[in-house]
Amino acid sequence: MADIGALPLTVLSEQFAKLPGIGMKSAQRLAYHVVEMPEEEVRAFAQAILDAKRRIHTCRICRNFTENEICRFCEDAKRDHGTVCVVETPKDITAFERTKEYKGVYHVLHGLISPIDGIGPDKLTIKDLLARVNSGDVEEVIMATNPTVEGEATAMYISKLLKPLGVKVTRLAFGLPIGGILEYADEITLFKALENRSEI
Amino acid sequence: MADIGALPLTVLSEQFAKLPGIGMKSAQRLAYHVVEMPEEEVRAFAQAILDAKRRIHTCRICRNFTENEICRFCEDAKRDHGTVCVVETPKDITAFERTKEYKGVYHVLHGLISPIDGIGPDKLTIKDLLARVNSGDVEEVIMATNPTVEGEATAMYISKLLKPLGVKVTRLAFGLPIGGILEYADEITLFKALENRSEI
Repeated sequence: MADIGALPLTVLSEQFAKLPGIGMKSAQRLAYHVVEMPEEEVRAFAQAILDAKRRIHTCRICRNFTENEICRFCEDAKRDHGTVCVVETPKDITAFERTKEYKGVYHVLHGLISPIDGIGPDKLTIKDLLARVNSGDVEEVIMATNPTVEGEATAMYISKLLKPLGVKVTRLAFGLPIGGILEYADEITLFKALENRSEI
Repeated sequence: MADIGALPLTVLSEQFAKLPGIGMKSAQRLAYHVVEMPEEEVRAFAQAILDAKRRIHTCRICRNFTENEICRFCEDAKRDHGTVCVVETPKDITAFERTKEYKGVYHVLHGLISPIDGIGPDKLTIKDLLARVNSGDVEEVIMATNPTVEGEATAMYISKLLKPLGVKVTRLAFGLPIGGILEYADEITLFKALENRSEI
């Protein structure tokens, strides 16, 4: 990071540049912006950062982020607690909630198995998931990891552990995205769409 | 902003979304990232924000951001204090410094005249610039505002105030960007390149 004229500005730029998806130029722009924000707003921003870190922890049951001991999905009696959707990160839950169709609960792995990055199954919340299934209330586990190499491998690994427990294990369907154009679909997606074709 | 499950996360997402160039989805991603950062790094990040706001103010001479009373350009005896480059924001200075060719000093306007946004000349640091020129040490003022409607209008406005003071006022050259492709140049740029052509 180039020296941008005053140490506190350089330090703040470096902090912003550490965040995902923020390059050096954007980081500088953000640092300059902070200096020009009203002092009250700057204080609120810094406080929000500290609060998020201090007050958010993971749900005792599903490991989603929550302020409480149990997250709002796990404590919601109207949801179907027999169906557990296994996701990589808490933000994947937001995506499922946007569909407004899913009424089950979740389980957050907080990562995917990735030997290259030194992430073994023990680094994820797989043990918690097995304990939930062992407790006997779970009927179906939906593996909803991303359709990447790590996502697929993690889904396979977990499903092998779950099946002996007598629970139904399913995987999200893969195929053409709605509104997508066939010509631009990559070959693997198209192959999956063909493989998973259904009668009309 | 959609509720993303826990209040401190929603609050932090909203704070990030207020920053320039950060949309709602990126803001959410950043908020989740903060929760997963080590606590020590989160504290350093919040502190950097507060420090930048508390410790940075504007140089008494040129209004650039600085930690001290006078910025490092204004206090550098090796620079040419007779040449003043007038820019819109402190980050424009970084761009000039990257050229490693400019050896003069700067003057930061902290904005451009924009009647639509209610920004009149009195909101900028034009008075400080006139005082600098009146003090008699300035030989040339380079108007280095952006080539936009507001940038041009501000450059014109200031140059009209400066010329009666007997100082040389210049404007950055406009033309084709180096490495650019003529076919993709917009018509105004091409017209400027033609108008400002030089003998070879």
